[in-house]
Amino acid sequence: MQRTRFSSMSCPIARSLEHVGEWWSILILRDAFQGLTQFDQFQKSLGIAPNMLSRRLNALVESGLLERRRYSERPPRDEYVLTERGRDFRPVMWAMLAWGNKHFAPEGPSVVVVEAETGAVADPVLVDRNSGKVMTHTTFRSAPGPAADATTRARHARRAAQSAPEVRT
Amino acid sequence: MQRTRFSSMSCPIARSLEHVGEWWSILILRDAFQGLTQFDQFQKSLGIAPNMLSRRLNALVESGLLERRRYSERPPRDEYVLTERGRDFRPVMWAMLAWGNKHFAPEGPSVVVVEAETGAVADPVLVDRNSGKVMTHTTFRSAPGPAADATTRARHARRAAQSAPEVRT
Repeated sequence: MQRTRFSSMSCPIARSLEHVGEWWSILILRDAFQGLTQFDQFQKSLGIAPNMLSRRLNALVESGLLERRRYSERPPRDEYVLTERGRDFRPVMWAMLAWGNKHFAPEGPSVVVVEAETGAVADPVLVDRNSGKVMTHTTFRSAPGPAADATTRARHARRAAQSAPEVRT
Repeated sequence: MQRTRFSSMSCPIARSLEHVGEWWSILILRDAFQGLTQFDQFQKSLGIAPNMLSRRLNALVESGLLERRRYSERPPRDEYVLTERGRDFRPVMWAMLAWGNKHFAPEGPSVVVVEAETGAVADPVLVDRNSGKVMTHTTFRSAPGPAADATTRARHARRAAQSAPEVRT
């Protein structure tokens, strides 16, 4: 199936999805965060078909989230190591983990995030580093940035008009 | 293509992907966060084929992220409104937005998150609500939770062994 190239959209979420918007890509990253680096390790962990795994690993390398490194010449073997861009995805993953634990784990969490030093269970929450405030859907909203195109500006303008307090005369 | 049912995996990330792990689903949620509710609005915003949009909206309703509400009887018309579960996904979206802005917006951000009251641009960062610490890949890690199965425990045990300091004799 032909799909839209999200990178042609200016939305940063659409552009992110161009690189990780695929079930397997995100699960490969999850495993990479857990220290897996080799093709066979990913394959065993995910139960994914080799040609599909190969395709997803290549895409993650092309997107700059993983780096391919030759670790054996005979036989030729590569490993896949997270780049800075790949490591920076971890907060997204943890935010997703917290959401999954809250909404799709009726039997209790099977995976949690802990502080490495103390082992204390963390409660991941998104905070504005500038103001220190927890970011909720009532206190924060998206807005056009400096590089916004006309579509992005129009979309936000329409929403601002919708949510403006009604004026009754 | 037949794909794995991620819900049979115990990993909360895999379970989340069962519900949102699809480009269109996440973009539909993005639009819903911006106040879109009607089929035609989503279609115009996304340029998605009607049958595909219909399928993705139904899936989001089944997953409990959107609620279908009849707003017109003649002609019959439904709108799609975010549930609490859907709204709770917004931090994941914002974390993804921040990652996209950092890594895939060479021309500068086209969308930012702002504080609703002041309009001040936010810098979204994941924080442990319990300790107040920013969650980085060096200071936090995932660990088996109370409902972890044998596979999850084994995976974490292997990683713990790998990352243990080397003992030189």
